[in-house]
Amino acid sequence: MCFVDLADFYGLVQVAVVNQPELVKKFGSLPRETLVEVNGIVQLRKDPNPSLASGKVEIVLDNFTVVSASALSPIVVENKTDALEEVRLRHRYLDLRRPSMQDMLRFRAKTLSVIRKFLESNNFLEVETPILVRPSIEGAAPYLVEAGVENKERFALAQSPQLYKQMLMVAGIPRY
Amino acid sequence: MCFVDLADFYGLVQVAVVNQPELVKKFGSLPRETLVEVNGIVQLRKDPNPSLASGKVEIVLDNFTVVSASALSPIVVENKTDALEEVRLRHRYLDLRRPSMQDMLRFRAKTLSVIRKFLESNNFLEVETPILVRPSIEGAAPYLVEAGVENKERFALAQSPQLYKQMLMVAGIPRY
Repeated sequence: MCFVDLADFYGLVQVAVVNQPELVKKFGSLPRETLVEVNGIVQLRKDPNPSLASGKVEIVLDNFTVVSASALSPIVVENKTDALEEVRLRHRYLDLRRPSMQDMLRFRAKTLSVIRKFLESNNFLEVETPILVRPSIEGAAPYLVEAGVENKERFALAQSPQLYKQMLMVAGIPRY
Repeated sequence: MCFVDLADFYGLVQVAVVNQPELVKKFGSLPRETLVEVNGIVQLRKDPNPSLASGKVEIVLDNFTVVSASALSPIVVENKTDALEEVRLRHRYLDLRRPSMQDMLRFRAKTLSVIRKFLESNNFLEVETPILVRPSIEGAAPYLVEAGVENKERFALAQSPQLYKQMLMVAGIPRY
């Protein structure tokens, strides 16, 4: 028999292959990070793993399909990695599979959500202000944008929505 | 006596000036859109106005301060306006005082909020992707940006986060 960790965005679960030597050989020899589809029965584990959210159950494998084969991964997809930053950035899609990286994305989204809810419940109004503005000497000089469409107008990236915020204030919108 | 409409972001309420000829003259002759601070007593109206959220009450004026005087407004700050678009844009801070304009801002914010809540409750992850990217032949040519800081690098404004979304997908983030 063999045990393999099956992971997706929501966590990981143990897959057990029992009494099927052929399947053990095939499934057990898949390289790490192979994308698979598995069929099987979910049952209670005899030896639960309390450190895992899904540690009380396991999937007893019936059969599986390889959706996408994996070459040898240049990064170990674990929380701890000794990969150089350059390697991690080059293979960002693997780097972002590491649970600690996904936790950061999740934490960021959650933080934004909490801030938005707080502001909303305090009567703040969400207003989007223009990103491309007319270049000005102080406010928007450093990032000039050439619009390569039609008549090649030049804009600038706004560095701050200051003018728009002042306009909202004068327009009687106290919280934005 | 005289009656004046006092408005803020949340709505408007009637201010009544009674038994004070001096105050009637001063308060009643303020130009429209003057920014005032008023002191007075809130009381039930004898003739409630059911079409107004605050129609059951009025403020009986004690005294007031002009925070900011107003010249003759180039736009009538009402839902219906016959001002030309050019005039409205030139005096956008007055145009945005019109309740119908503020309703649109509110509706937009509410819509965004509802969409975000739906996506969040369905396990979507909010990820922000870069706005400035390396220029490429197809994806990001039309809007070239000259970064006027230091070494004048050239970037482009991303037209779509396609590559980043594909990277997230491969990284095992199914909903973003």
